[in-house]
Order: sequence, then C-alpha cells, then structure tokens
Amino acid sequence: MRVNPQELPEGLADPDEGISVEELQLAARNHGMPLEALAYDITPVGMHYLLTHWDVPETDAETWTVGVDGLVDRSLSLSVDDLRARPAVTMAVTMECAGNGRARLSPRPISQPWIQEAVGTAEWTGTPLAPILSEAGLRSDAVEILFTGADHGIQGEVEQDYQRSLSIEEAMREEVLLAYAINGQPLPPQHGSPVRLIVPGWYGMTSVKWLRTIEAVPEPFEGFQMDAYRIRDHADDPGVPVTYLRPRALMIPPGFPEFLSRRRHVDAGPTEIRGRAWSGAGPVAGVEVSIDGGASWSDADLGPQPSRWAWAPWSFLWQAAAGKYELLCRATDRAGNVQPVDQEWNFHGLQNNMTQRVPVLVR
Amino acid sequence: MRVNPQELPEGLADPDEGISVEELQLAARNHGMPLEALAYDITPVGMHYLLTHWDVPETDAETWTVGVDGLVDRSLSLSVDDLRARPAVTMAVTMECAGNGRARLSPRPISQPWIQEAVGTAEWTGTPLAPILSEAGLRSDAVEILFTGADHGIQGEVEQDYQRSLSIEEAMREEVLLAYAINGQPLPPQHGSPVRLIVPGWYGMTSVKWLRTIEAVPEPFEGFQMDAYRIRDHADDPGVPVTYLRPRALMIPPGFPEFLSRRRHVDAGPTEIRGRAWSGAGPVAGVEVSIDGGASWSDADLGPQPSRWAWAPWSFLWQAAAGKYELLCRATDRAGNVQPVDQEWNFHGLQNNMTQRVPVLVR
Repeated sequence: MRVNPQELPEGLADPDEGISVEELQLAARNHGMPLEALAYDITPVGMHYLLTHWDVPETDAETWTVGVDGLVDRSLSLSVDDLRARPAVTMAVTMECAGNGRARLSPRPISQPWIQEAVGTAEWTGTPLAPILSEAGLRSDAVEILFTGADHGIQGEVEQDYQRSLSIEEAMREEVLLAYAINGQPLPPQHGSPVRLIVPGWYGMTSVKWLRTIEAVPEPFEGFQMDAYRIRDHADDPGVPVTYLRPRALMIPPGFPEFLSRRRHVDAGPTEIRGRAWSGAGPVAGVEVSIDGGASWSDADLGPQPSRWAWAPWSFLWQAAAGKYELLCRATDRAGNVQPVDQEWNFHGLQNNMTQRVPVLVR
Repeated sequence: MRVNPQELPEGLADPDEGISVEELQLAARNHGMPLEALAYDITPVGMHYLLTHWDVPETDAETWTVGVDGLVDRSLSLSVDDLRARPAVTMAVTMECAGNGRARLSPRPISQPWIQEAVGTAEWTGTPLAPILSEAGLRSDAVEILFTGADHGIQGEVEQDYQRSLSIEEAMREEVLLAYAINGQPLPPQHGSPVRLIVPGWYGMTSVKWLRTIEAVPEPFEGFQMDAYRIRDHADDPGVPVTYLRPRALMIPPGFPEFLSRRRHVDAGPTEIRGRAWSGAGPVAGVEVSIDGGASWSDADLGPQPSRWAWAPWSFLWQAAAGKYELLCRATDRAGNVQPVDQEWNFHGLQNNMTQRVPVLVR
C-alpha cells in the first residue's frame, strides 16, 4: 500500500548541511563497530554493527516456524528445533552494511549516516539452505528464492515486510546458512532471533533477519528493497544491484583519542598499526599503508583469513616521529579490485569503500 | 597534562545547526537502546545503551587485578578469580546515561547526541564492594573512594584515565558491586571486561568500567569527570553534581515506523501501549499517559519493580480512532519527583528527563 507522502528530507544533503534529526534518530538506534574492536578475530555481540530498517520484532523461538513454499514440490514448515536437528555449520563471516561510508560522501545521501564502522565478523551457526531447498524440490520454473522477514514498516512510501531475493544459483551456494546462533549463543533479538539468513560475501541487506518464509518464485522479485539497493548516478538511473562486498581495510586508530573530536595522540617511537581487511569478490591479496596522507604507500604484513568469508588481520610497524600525520590503509583482492582513495559517489551512497583517513598527532 | 587546544565546536549549537561531524562520530560508536527493547525485563546484550568516553581497552581477564589502596590498613590486589571466589550477588539494575535526552534540548549542548534511548536494564553479577573495603581497613581520615578505569584519553584538554569518586557512605551501600558478569555471561569488552563498578540508582558515569584501582583518599576528588558531570546554568556556574537517576517513563512506540522519519502508524482499535519507568531517588509511584500532546493525562497500570534498582513495567489500553496524535508518558516517584513535560535546560545537557513525545497516525 501507499501512504501519504510526508515532509521528508530530500535525497541529498546540501554541502554545508549538518546531520538531520532524521539521520540522528537512525544513528542513535543503529550502531557501528567501534574500530578498536578490529582487535578481535570474532566481534563480540554488542560491538558488531547493526542496522534495523524498522523495529526489532518480538519473536518466540518456541513457536517460530520458517515456511518453505512457492514453486516447490513439497512445502515445508521448519521449527527452530527442526533446524537445530539438521547438519550444523559454524562459520566466521564478515558482514558490512551496503551503506557503510555514506556520511563521508559529498553530497551526502540522506539515510543511515555511517562513517566507516558498519562492519563486524561473527561466528554464525546454522544449517545450510541448499539441502532444504532440494528436499522441498525446487520446480524448474523457479528463477529466484524470495526471503521474507518479520520486520514491517514503511520505506519510500511503501508499506512492506522486509524482503530480498537471491538467484537460484546464489541461494544454492553451500555456504548460505539458516543461522540460529551467533558466537555460540542463540541469536539475540537484534541479530534476527530466532532464525536469519546468512549470505557470506554479500553486503548485509541480503542476510534477512527474523526469517519467516522462503519462497521459490517464477520471476525476479522487484520489491522495494531490491530497488533500494542499486548503484545509481541519479534518482532516475536504473542502476545496477549491490551484491558482493568490495575490498576494504580498516585500522585500529593508534594511540588514544580526544573525546569529542576523536583525534588521535601517539607517543613517538615504534608503533604497531593493526587492522583487518576483507573482500567479497575474492580473497584479500594485500594491504597497503600510507603515513603521509596517500602520497606514498608501503605493504602491510597480511595474516591468513580464518575462512574465505572472514576478514584477514594485518599489521604495519610505523616508526613514529613527532609531528602531524594522516594515516590511510587500502586493500586489494585477488579478483583485481583495489580500494579507491577518493569517493566513488552514487545516489544512495552504497558500497562506497573509499579509504579510511586517521589524523594523528605524534608527540 | 594539558595539550594544545584544538578547533572544537563551541559548547552549544546554534538554533538551526544540524548535528556536527563530531557528534555523529560519537553517535556512530555509542548507541542507545532501540525503544522496542522496553519489551524485555532484562535488556539483551547489544541492545543495552553504551557510552565509552575514549576507546574500549583491550584487557586480559587472566592477568587482570583490581588494586585496593590509599588510606587503608592493608592494600589488596584482587584477581578476577579472587572476586569470583567471594560472595556473589546478581541484581537487575536500570542504568541510564546522564546525557540522555541531550539532543532534544534547545540550545543543544554539543556532546554525545542522545535523543532519549540511553538506557537499559542488565542483570549484573558481582561481589559487594563494602566487605572488601572493610577487609582492607578504611582509615578514619579517608573521605572518599576513588575508582580508576583503564580507559584513557583527552577530554576538555586534559589527558586522563577515567576516574570517578564516591563518598564513603555511598561506596559502602550494600548494593554497590564489583561486577564481572552481565546477563549470566562474562562482561564483554564494551561493558567493562573483566571488572566494573556498578552503583545502582546513579547515572551511568559512576559505574566505572575496566576497573583498575580503588583508592581511599583524604579529600574530595576534583578530577575532570567530577567537574564534567555537574548541572550548570552556564559555563562558569559552579553547579551541583549529578547523582541519582531522575524519574523517567518511556513507551514502546506503538504500531510500525517509517524508515527515515520513524513516524508511527497504528491501526484503529484497542492498542496496548507498553513501557517501563524508573527513578533512582525513590521507587516508581505511578505512570501517566497522554494521547493529546499533554493536554490531559490518564493513569497507566503499573507493574512491580523486579528490584528497587530496576525499571517497572507499565501498560495503558488506548482505544485508538483514526487521526493524528501525539503520545506522551511521564513517571512520578515516591520521593515526590514528577517528570517534567518541558525541558529543564542546563549547560551540559545532563539528567534531562523531559517526557518522550511519540507522533502517531491512526488509520
């Protein structure tokens, strides 16, 4: 259904426009991962980034079922116990919001105003989706799998349940899970309790939380959330869909911060700069660090990814001498993607992976 | 030490000034409790509000010790195992940031820009502080207990470890804990791992995280964080210290929201409005609800507080008819405090408890 248009902010902020009340409301609810949490292989629950479009639904794991229907030979209704009784897989997966970095774009698209922290790596436990779809018997006229969550609201004047689809090929990837646990614990409400989809390598919008139904459909799904996550030059550009994570490296800002400005202070001497890097399109190939604002780059030491879908640790030894610096880091992947130093702007501010910049004062 | 002043925003925002980048950086790191989490007696980890002044320190529970020294007969050094071997208390405690509501003030004090969600109720497990102070043997010339955390940074141009003090009387209250678990789990990094202070009934700044030392001191501590948490009319006003939580009721916004505006839509008919209420100064005495923007008020049904220091559930049955409404709720406590409908402005935007306002469209 359509509701009356409301007086919403325009799509793009004016050049000198501060963050609006609407953006702040989202920032106060949702949260990024404080970058010092890059210290952990697995992000503790509560430090992992979180983006909820509407409200976190109240759910009951005891009575919850996930329906499998549409173009299948046998509809299924799976309780949480049913899912737990199936083969279990535990996998470390780096997840990032497709809007990460949006607030650094100029002009700034008005939505959840992420700076660069909308990421985290959790150890998800669940059961693979593919055997479930096989058991249901996908019919030959099915072209996509549509996933519907229990979260409900209005976006772009459209009232909707949260829905995203995947091609049959993507949905049948062996690493796609119906997850019921995070970091060894039952999913908490905000991460999709009691069951969510996990699609490793993709931006987070695809990993539908509070999963209610899995439906095989005869045509590509064209609902709101498919349209919303497209890379567009302008509002009327048909654009291209957001899919796999682009490469990104982030560092733990060294030293200690000022409360308000978050500017960093470091003591002169050898300083280990540490961080993580990831890419959905291919394994991480390398990380480079610049201590001069991007004028020159040096290779960081890159550790192994704990799984194909989880971030790799990296470190770089910096001989810090007194002065002012701007530190940068950038990742490349084996698919040949290099993180851009400058913004690659698009209308919704999606899959932007321009490099982090960390001003540092060395004393 | 003092460092060079930097170009920071002024203390108060101009009337039409949007949220600054500095405020957004804080909002992206710290986070409120999404108000739908008022559905839970105990806030799940990850939905509880969180405010970290500087960085979340990396700590090691295996080697961590809490020192007890200063004006005591016997200095102590307590490991986490030592604390766990002592008598354990588990207690539900509602904690709120002293800056909650700051972003709704006009003019807006520039700091962490909370709207109204900086609250949560956790079940903390720890050991009482008072017997530890007794074992150490407080000397008669001790007037305060000073608590020092491992978080370190610059605020107000002062480089500091996070430090807060309590009077001997407050520190010896039986419900003051050294907590090592939250909701039955070891503290996660962001909540003060491995040991933090819990001071039930006070605003959150007093419950020092990542607790390193407990020192009996001969004079009232006048460090930065004591000065920062004072109610002032203007920058030069000596002000009065922030202590116990003022009464506040919050509701789960009914119906469902729009993504960006967060405006609520409700179907006509009987609608249960639910929420929680708390006060540090006394038990919650009552909650009132207004559905007409504050022109008239009705009593809500108030449930029991699970402990003196935890919020009480309340509910109100609203016969919603089509139209536009503004819903409010306000709490009173047995100490005679009533939540104000309008702002009680102060320079740092502290312990502001003006009532929540929820615009609702009923269809």
